[in-house]
Amino acid sequence: MSDDKSSNAMWGGRFAAGPDAIMEAINASIGFDRRLAKQDIEGSRAHAAMLATQGIITDSDASAIREGLLTVLSEIEGGTFPWRVELEDIHMNVEARLKEIVGEAAGRLHTGRSRNDQVAVDFRLWVRDQCDAADGALVALMESLIGQAEDGADWVMPGFTHLQVAQPVTWGHHMMAYVEMFARDRARFADARKRMNESPLGAAALAGTSFPLDRHATATALGFDRPMANSLDSVAARDFALEFLGVASICAMHLSRLAEELVIWSSAQFRFVTMSDRWSTGSSIMPQKRNPDAAELLRAKIGRIFGANVALMTVMKGLPLTYSKDMQEDKEQTFDAADHLMLGLAAMTGMVADMKARPDDLRVAAAMGFSTATDLADWLVRELGLPFRDAHHITGSLVAMAEKKDCDLPELTLEDMQSVHVGITKSVFDVLGVDNSVASRTSYGGTAPDNVRAQIARWKKDLS
Amino acid sequence: MSDDKSSNAMWGGRFAAGPDAIMEAINASIGFDRRLAKQDIEGSRAHAAMLATQGIITDSDASAIREGLLTVLSEIEGGTFPWRVELEDIHMNVEARLKEIVGEAAGRLHTGRSRNDQVAVDFRLWVRDQCDAADGALVALMESLIGQAEDGADWVMPGFTHLQVAQPVTWGHHMMAYVEMFARDRARFADARKRMNESPLGAAALAGTSFPLDRHATATALGFDRPMANSLDSVAARDFALEFLGVASICAMHLSRLAEELVIWSSAQFRFVTMSDRWSTGSSIMPQKRNPDAAELLRAKIGRIFGANVALMTVMKGLPLTYSKDMQEDKEQTFDAADHLMLGLAAMTGMVADMKARPDDLRVAAAMGFSTATDLADWLVRELGLPFRDAHHITGSLVAMAEKKDCDLPELTLEDMQSVHVGITKSVFDVLGVDNSVASRTSYGGTAPDNVRAQIARWKKDLS
Amino acid sequence: MSDDKSSNAMWGGRFAAGPDAIMEAINASIGFDRRLAKQDIEGSRAHAAMLATQGIITDSDASAIREGLLTVLSEIEGGTFPWRVELEDIHMNVEARLKEIVGEAAGRLHTGRSRNDQVAVDFRLWVRDQCDAADGALVALMESLIGQAEDGADWVMPGFTHLQVAQPVTWGHHMMAYVEMFARDRARFADARKRMNESPLGAAALAGTSFPLDRHATATALGFDRPMANSLDSVAARDFALEFLGVASICAMHLSRLAEELVIWSSAQFRFVTMSDRWSTGSSIMPQKRNPDAAELLRAKIGRIFGANVALMTVMKGLPLTYSKDMQEDKEQTFDAADHLMLGLAAMTGMVADMKARPDDLRVAAAMGFSTATDLADWLVRELGLPFRDAHHITGSLVAMAEKKDCDLPELTLEDMQSVHVGITKSVFDVLGVDNSVASRTSYGGTAPDNVRAQIARWKKDLS
Amino acid sequence: MSDDKSSNAMWGGRFAAGPDAIMEAINASIGFDRRLAKQDIEGSRAHAAMLATQGIITDSDASAIREGLLTVLSEIEGGTFPWRVELEDIHMNVEARLKEIVGEAAGRLHTGRSRNDQVAVDFRLWVRDQCDAADGALVALMESLIGQAEDGADWVMPGFTHLQVAQPVTWGHHMMAYVEMFARDRARFADARKRMNESPLGAAALAGTSFPLDRHATATALGFDRPMANSLDSVAARDFALEFLGVASICAMHLSRLAEELVIWSSAQFRFVTMSDRWSTGSSIMPQKRNPDAAELLRAKIGRIFGANVALMTVMKGLPLTYSKDMQEDKEQTFDAADHLMLGLAAMTGMVADMKARPDDLRVAAAMGFSTATDLADWLVRELGLPFRDAHHITGSLVAMAEKKDCDLPELTLEDMQSVHVGITKSVFDVLGVDNSVASRTSYGGTAPDNVRAQIARWKKDLS
Repeated sequence: MSDDKSSNAMWGGRFAAGPDAIMEAINASIGFDRRLAKQDIEGSRAHAAMLATQGIITDSDASAIREGLLTVLSEIEGGTFPWRVELEDIHMNVEARLKEIVGEAAGRLHTGRSRNDQVAVDFRLWVRDQCDAADGALVALMESLIGQAEDGADWVMPGFTHLQVAQPVTWGHHMMAYVEMFARDRARFADARKRMNESPLGAAALAGTSFPLDRHATATALGFDRPMANSLDSVAARDFALEFLGVASICAMHLSRLAEELVIWSSAQFRFVTMSDRWSTGSSIMPQKRNPDAAELLRAKIGRIFGANVALMTVMKGLPLTYSKDMQEDKEQTFDAADHLMLGLAAMTGMVADMKARPDDLRVAAAMGFSTATDLADWLVRELGLPFRDAHHITGSLVAMAEKKDCDLPELTLEDMQSVHVGITKSVFDVLGVDNSVASRTSYGGTAPDNVRAQIARWKKDLS
Repeated sequence: MSDDKSSNAMWGGRFAAGPDAIMEAINASIGFDRRLAKQDIEGSRAHAAMLATQGIITDSDASAIREGLLTVLSEIEGGTFPWRVELEDIHMNVEARLKEIVGEAAGRLHTGRSRNDQVAVDFRLWVRDQCDAADGALVALMESLIGQAEDGADWVMPGFTHLQVAQPVTWGHHMMAYVEMFARDRARFADARKRMNESPLGAAALAGTSFPLDRHATATALGFDRPMANSLDSVAARDFALEFLGVASICAMHLSRLAEELVIWSSAQFRFVTMSDRWSTGSSIMPQKRNPDAAELLRAKIGRIFGANVALMTVMKGLPLTYSKDMQEDKEQTFDAADHLMLGLAAMTGMVADMKARPDDLRVAAAMGFSTATDLADWLVRELGLPFRDAHHITGSLVAMAEKKDCDLPELTLEDMQSVHVGITKSVFDVLGVDNSVASRTSYGGTAPDNVRAQIARWKKDLS
Repeated sequence: MSDDKSSNAMWGGRFAAGPDAIMEAINASIGFDRRLAKQDIEGSRAHAAMLATQGIITDSDASAIREGLLTVLSEIEGGTFPWRVELEDIHMNVEARLKEIVGEAAGRLHTGRSRNDQVAVDFRLWVRDQCDAADGALVALMESLIGQAEDGADWVMPGFTHLQVAQPVTWGHHMMAYVEMFARDRARFADARKRMNESPLGAAALAGTSFPLDRHATATALGFDRPMANSLDSVAARDFALEFLGVASICAMHLSRLAEELVIWSSAQFRFVTMSDRWSTGSSIMPQKRNPDAAELLRAKIGRIFGANVALMTVMKGLPLTYSKDMQEDKEQTFDAADHLMLGLAAMTGMVADMKARPDDLRVAAAMGFSTATDLADWLVRELGLPFRDAHHITGSLVAMAEKKDCDLPELTLEDMQSVHVGITKSVFDVLGVDNSVASRTSYGGTAPDNVRAQIARWKKDLS
Repeated sequence: MSDDKSSNAMWGGRFAAGPDAIMEAINASIGFDRRLAKQDIEGSRAHAAMLATQGIITDSDASAIREGLLTVLSEIEGGTFPWRVELEDIHMNVEARLKEIVGEAAGRLHTGRSRNDQVAVDFRLWVRDQCDAADGALVALMESLIGQAEDGADWVMPGFTHLQVAQPVTWGHHMMAYVEMFARDRARFADARKRMNESPLGAAALAGTSFPLDRHATATALGFDRPMANSLDSVAARDFALEFLGVASICAMHLSRLAEELVIWSSAQFRFVTMSDRWSTGSSIMPQKRNPDAAELLRAKIGRIFGANVALMTVMKGLPLTYSKDMQEDKEQTFDAADHLMLGLAAMTGMVADMKARPDDLRVAAAMGFSTATDLADWLVRELGLPFRDAHHITGSLVAMAEKKDCDLPELTLEDMQSVHVGITKSVFDVLGVDNSVASRTSYGGTAPDNVRAQIARWKKDLS
């Protein structure tokens, strides 16, 4: 087939520039991997120092390289670095500039190294930084939630199942439930960080090298716990990025649950909370209106974060060892997911800190739907020694009676009660109010305000 | 909780600028929805013209608006447009600039319209354009494949199942298999386009409007088949984008299959094809080396395209009517998926056009593994009238004999054959060569070169 | 490595029976592909008839085979068929039983056919049936929705954006929005059906065959529009299943949106609808309680249906032509997704038919939040000729005044109004009530009850 | 709307039995949650013992309950248990049967407990068991891989990038790369297990309870590290299942990579390995044929496992606290994913144990494509002190010369070499053979056989 067939004429439209432009567009990574500049330079500096220590390059070459790399970094951070797309990626851009700055010594930097282990170390360092960033952001969010919990440790609100009022709980207890979830997310990021904290540097192209590298030294210099033990694995592995994305997805799932609650709670029908202006948008025509935009956007973030997880999992499916160019797709997905997770955590932290619960509305809602029926049944079991299933039956009759009378359970008279079961005494009324109900849930982890306060104290200590 | 808690101190690092910067970062869409500028202006021009025709605004206001919008468009296309992030999105940026250009008349453009139906029409127009772009790109790819098929309509190669040689087929037949797949992808894009080609414009915020709009007129002006019949649906629907992403994902799946074949065929072990330099990368040290980078990147594109599908499906899951801010996440995913699909189709078109098959190697590979054993069995059924299962048994014995003698089936003697079944005659040798094998597959859709040429002719006519 | 290492000792626990049991567990498909029995027999009967017509087998063999297959089918449907796992799949189970019934003729059935094209035709027929089932189920659901719309074409309810009350709409309009969505789902299933309606039968193993098959005849007999044009594509393609899953996922997304609304509307805070007992579950202790279980389960179905889509897309990613055993994973995913989609559509049809809206509560909710502010602004534009943006400003002032006075917009006096803009006249009050508001939205697709009734009439005619 | 509209007539076909059958089909979980029987009974026995210790029920009631539950378990395990679909789930089936066996005491078992915490504890125990099962299966697989590595610690084979031969490595090194990956999978399962090992039992419906439960006691009895600290979180959390699915997906990704290699290596073009008959399927007609079915099926398993992850992530997206019926969808996905992961690990263990590498073919392949060019360049750097980039240039010239002469690098003469660079000495030939090449890669983690053997020894010790 003649090359003429791929002449520019056939490309048309979007790719008028023809195949070379298409190849550049699909192949060059410098558009996104420049975000690895700091890590790339950090890795190269560690490598150069080690090469000198091992006598593979001279000390003066190493010094020149290391200084030159700092210059490159300051150019990049200062916005003066001359990026060149034709050099394709961050590694070649840095190296080419380094050569301009320090001359021939730059050519010795790549000894015993390859782009395969170089990109692996850069990307691993970047993802490790994100684990740390997530940790900090989660702590801030937990502190926001704890702040809310402190304010309302004993504000009674409905506990829901199926979005139906089930039993009274406290605002503080509800806030602290999310503290538990985000704490597990933190632990997952910590575990992922620990697992990925091994250095691929020195694996070279894939087989290791015959230069007497000290891989332990570079690992230590870069804050890794140890070098990776197999050179093929070092350049082929991307499970560290997938684990990060998986953990981020679960965290985004937790954000989506809280965000959904904030959206529902902000509705005119619920009126449980008022979101601050800062996290809402209004309407020029309805000045009282507050759309919970930030909460909605956070609810949606799970989409792109988990989408990134799907994307990279699909890319990695069935790839033979070791490096395949497919793996270049790992970075944009991870960058995007990490950016939006951090943004989401920060926004949620602010929203939670700013929102105002409406304790009176919460309290009224908590009493709806005979929400203390379980308390009544438990009283029958505990005080009268009835079997659980019988107690349920009696409670059902009393609820039906109250429904018929269009009143709440505490508004039934003792006589009403005794007409269903003669053993009922006045003390039953102690458990029918929503305050008494929540106060009675003293089992470990239960919603009693004292429990909630104890949990708050535990967490404040833990986070301090 | 005091607002102090959300003071800048708590944000640190990435969001040092505090909550307002975070909200802007999460809320503003102008960073990506500026890509809708052309569609936004097209929609506004149609709306303005209709408002005048209906007597809702004056003709002179309409003229001023329509001219002014052209000015805005030329500023945008010329790179001189003053984008303002604080105006959040493309709609407000265009409107604000329009006001600067034409004055008060700009304030009348938005009559009977809302950002809800405006963004719906913009995005729908954009996705519709992508269907058209995909159509053109698929035609180009099919033409590349047909070009290869013409060159090698009768080049014999192995047909694989389980990546094991099964039966001989022709290069042209293999190429044309992909033509069929991409033709179905084309049809899917066409169906999606047809279905999405209804205008949401005029649904206003969500309920329709009391202004006497002529929605049929704006629909026609914008190339839509009709206005959407329900205003709530008009602003709430995003199935059109999901359908586009689903169709794009299937297309990317087809690309991934072809790309995998190109990677395998380029290996030193297969040597079925040589990729051109243009779509490969080399090694400074191994000048003969050609890494099939473009093919690998294309194999990976299904990841991000299907990831985008997952992302938007997750976003839309469980969203109540009508517009929720979550839906702002629809655009970046769709933009990215469309960009990479178009890029992938163009790159595949070029790779296919440029690649050189190695007919001699293909032919040798086709004869491996007793690939004409089925032909032998079919001969026994057809010529000797044996039941299918008996014919299989005899063929198995002959293959075992050839394996023992370390020769191919055609190298067995007639005596060898008759020692297994006396009825076998000399004419059996007619079916044992790979050329005869492929020539004999004349059933409709079979691999016989004449069939392949007929299919090529059919498709060339169809595409012309 | 000695085989001893794979002796039973190493398996332990779950796979005590050793490798053969594991291979059987991973390889045998009869546990699920028996669902293809009807399609398999239908395909074989068509193939046998064609073989006889073409003179490839005798008429008497064809008759024996075709009768025998009916016997097999009646055994399967009657539950007396002797399934054998060691025969692995539905095809071998049927063929082996056929041989017991009709003897040697059974051995001629497979002439010019392979399991590769056989399973492709079976599965395609099965998925085609599901498209038809989805069509019927969608019609039933649309009829349920139309029934609700007829009852409440003029019941005023809040139209929401961001789950905030935006403008009044009608119950009927809201129901009809879903009719539009499900109608598009129907169209997608119809398009998918049309596209998949080509016969792979006769592609044989992958290359076609030298037997003079009449593929058009078997295609016609099985209700296909035509045979597939490329034998490799015939056995390798699974895009038809992916398209079905993609379409089913979008449909499930629509179900999830409606289900979410039903869950929210059933809450004590909204009280927009009462779900019937039949689709709810209660509590032995709170007899008044109705958990919207069915709605919640439907909201969740998108998970498994889209999960199946992801599963099969991942499986197909990067598979070289033609058949690979990976593709055996296609069926369970598709079966499960189809089953749950049909179940979901049926359950939603019942839920919608049974649910009772609460018109009075809807009406009260519709008036909340100054929901007719837009009507007021539009009145100012229309009657006083104010520019849109000025009208918005004045409306904002009036809403703020009402908010301060703790009253609704219609409760402001004319004097109040004129204190903001002197031009306002008494006729403004005509647009401030929710009934007038909805009645005024007469633009095509708007929520005016007459519009809604016209759409109902259109759809009833269309579905009849 | 009249109930008549939901009369049986409208259901037709699949759901002829009408709405009640549909609700049962969508709502009942006993079809799958019976797999939790062992865990359910274990949890109930611990709860009963604690209730007695705390004086909430009598010792004799507790004994009766605990004995009765053992009877129930033996009935279930013996296959004699009378399952009843109308009791919906495993909990009610067990409790109802318990009541038949022990009478009224059964009614006291549910004191201070709810189905919400009960199902949470059952499911958590089940998933915890799967982590343990995965651990055992991964150890077996790692042992299989180590067995292969021991056999071929010094068999030279090609190391690939882009499926192109890059540098020689050893078979043992390649096997050990997968040991590293599966070891990280093990660690992930261990971390997930540790994190999920908290007891939700005693959270009751959602708020905790007023009975003086000892949650620490039941936690200890069930092998949990502690009770969960928040009752709302206890019944609402499903991140433990998502973490399991995420970890399983990464593990399946690793399986898919190895499986892809086995499929490619089994091809006639590669011939690197022979899969045993046991894990292959043949052809009646081509007795020499071995399709790597098991490997293909394993390559595909990532689809359904990751599909399950997507399914549950989608279900959990945006669910408000606490329990919603949507969450019933968690179990089937997790069961299916766990089953197929365990099956996949077992099958891979067997396949790896049984497969025979072909050392001679591997060795020939390793020498292809001037695979020691890097060694030559490194020699130039190391021995002649050339800068890295110059060494690359000289090597490129020598490779080009060898290519022109159609010979391998070691076949060039010293004169040939010196014509490109005069400094080259005879000792260069020491690094050009594939054995010398691999022997020289002695950097930590490199492919030198001694390194590989050291890693084998480390891992054998670690696993023993």
